[in-house]
Amino acid sequence: MIIALDAMGGDKGPLPLVKGAVLAAMQHGTEIILVGKKDILEEALSTVPSIEKLPITIEHASEVVGMAESPADALRRKKDSSVRVAFDLVRAGKAQGVVSAGNSGATLATAMFILGRIKGVRPAIATLIPTLREPALLIDVGANVDCKPHHLLQFGIMGSLFVREFLIKERPRVGLLSIGEEGRKGNTQVKKAYDLLDTSNLNFCGNVEGRDVFRGEVDVIVCDGFVGNICLKLSEGLAESVIAMLRNEIEGNLLATMGYGLAKKAFKRFKKRVDYAEYGGAPLLGVGGTAIICHGSSEPKAVMNAIGVAYNLASLKLAEKLEASMSNRKDVLRII
Amino acid sequence: MIIALDAMGGDKGPLPLVKGAVLAAMQHGTEIILVGKKDILEEALSTVPSIEKLPITIEHASEVVGMAESPADALRRKKDSSVRVAFDLVRAGKAQGVVSAGNSGATLATAMFILGRIKGVRPAIATLIPTLREPALLIDVGANVDCKPHHLLQFGIMGSLFVREFLIKERPRVGLLSIGEEGRKGNTQVKKAYDLLDTSNLNFCGNVEGRDVFRGEVDVIVCDGFVGNICLKLSEGLAESVIAMLRNEIEGNLLATMGYGLAKKAFKRFKKRVDYAEYGGAPLLGVGGTAIICHGSSEPKAVMNAIGVAYNLASLKLAEKLEASMSNRKDVLRII
Repeated sequence: MIIALDAMGGDKGPLPLVKGAVLAAMQHGTEIILVGKKDILEEALSTVPSIEKLPITIEHASEVVGMAESPADALRRKKDSSVRVAFDLVRAGKAQGVVSAGNSGATLATAMFILGRIKGVRPAIATLIPTLREPALLIDVGANVDCKPHHLLQFGIMGSLFVREFLIKERPRVGLLSIGEEGRKGNTQVKKAYDLLDTSNLNFCGNVEGRDVFRGEVDVIVCDGFVGNICLKLSEGLAESVIAMLRNEIEGNLLATMGYGLAKKAFKRFKKRVDYAEYGGAPLLGVGGTAIICHGSSEPKAVMNAIGVAYNLASLKLAEKLEASMSNRKDVLRII
Repeated sequence: MIIALDAMGGDKGPLPLVKGAVLAAMQHGTEIILVGKKDILEEALSTVPSIEKLPITIEHASEVVGMAESPADALRRKKDSSVRVAFDLVRAGKAQGVVSAGNSGATLATAMFILGRIKGVRPAIATLIPTLREPALLIDVGANVDCKPHHLLQFGIMGSLFVREFLIKERPRVGLLSIGEEGRKGNTQVKKAYDLLDTSNLNFCGNVEGRDVFRGEVDVIVCDGFVGNICLKLSEGLAESVIAMLRNEIEGNLLATMGYGLAKKAFKRFKKRVDYAEYGGAPLLGVGGTAIICHGSSEPKAVMNAIGVAYNLASLKLAEKLEASMSNRKDVLRII
């Protein structure tokens, strides 16, 4: 099982990506192909200690897709980009999964173009979020900004299968993100999706309100990519803001500051718990292979974890299972 | 300036509402009409100390709209409900604003039916949210779950005027909630709204991503009511969850627990800062009068603050100013 890492994408240049690959190879023995400009990657690798016997190779790609570049343009014009070559490796059977921290629109477009997608299905980006109980899967967090109700049903099916296989949970509980608990609450799209989910064979638990997202009462939370992306980024921003506001409050008070000093370790553990990096990127579900999208600013540890997730999903043959599951359900694909 | 309080709505019965009215009357001398079942309200009033000389009267209403009742049904069938009678008082000129913690859909529907709405405008619920700097206005947070782009423009205009008049800020900065900073990012609705806002005479600052909502870089954040409601409730839930997770972490550690004890006061001040109750409910903008929607579980203090906001908005003649502002802008109303 070999993972191709788009080693040129991301906000911080190749170094944190290369370091992440080295960590994954060292700690888990994962075979990795770094894809990108050969001289740059060789130099980056040379700065990282103890790489001698690691199963890491380099595949040259002469171009890089910029973070702000149009995905469609990149796909059309940059045929030798690092992300494109990484997916080509998977199509050629030389790698079994791709991890990229680059332009996520371009990663999505390239994955769909090179690996194909399950016929009739809208691929979606899923991400595990921390809750008061176990992590929950939010799907879609940005691949589809304009969805039809049956796309939300597709997300529910894919998310459910992901949780069953990856988190090993039978009959994952599926919720639909909306503005009230009753089925008749929501916008037109969501009310129709409710009916589809309710009559599906999923373990559908009804609507989930915003305030319940972090309660951990469902395993899969279905939403369209526009809403999901806003929620995901809002959560990151709010978690940071809450901590910043709390720290401000605490620093304003001498006694409390002493307390804060003692409580610092607890803060650190807490930050780890809400740190999305721990979960290792967001899998792209519904394409014909394994692809993981990471934050542009991923640290080496996040990259290592994403490589681990790619390895596991490829081992589980999740993409094949999704395809088998969806193609058995023509009803899901035809609904308008 | 007299405020009519729907004293029967809410999750906790009339007592916190009546107490809130007494606080408002005692601390600010506001004249208040409690609307609801006379005997129940007289009894509730009798349990609250020092009410002798307060400017509080009771207006009898024989019916109550339940929290889960259909707003349309309530409007059609319960012509003597507390919320209906409260708005009737405003229409008759006996009160200048309504505050309700009851069924918010019914409050919205009754406000539109009794007070009317600005022709061609979709009334919206606005709410002040805490940020790292000054509070920002999120509009719409639930009145309109299916919006056209020009409705988002209307929300921007109303929100801007609200901030200018109520928070006394010239040229409020207006942002559009979306999934990327550039104008071409977002769903179809939001991309079209971007163009409308961008060519309007508002101080439009472009898209605001989820992670920037709490940074306080804009004064008004425009979104449709479905997205806004989810964001609002997600924020409440997440703020609670972050604090709960943090407390769990801290309690697991003896030294940190001691620190936590010392830091408790800071926590309290912090909670006050993120407490929506402090801001006193959500004004309904775009109807022909003043109406404030409160949380169903509002405490007396929140009710007092909401009465204060209603008093101020009525004094500012905000509804009239909104109408004058919108009716001068026929372009805003006709866009499809």
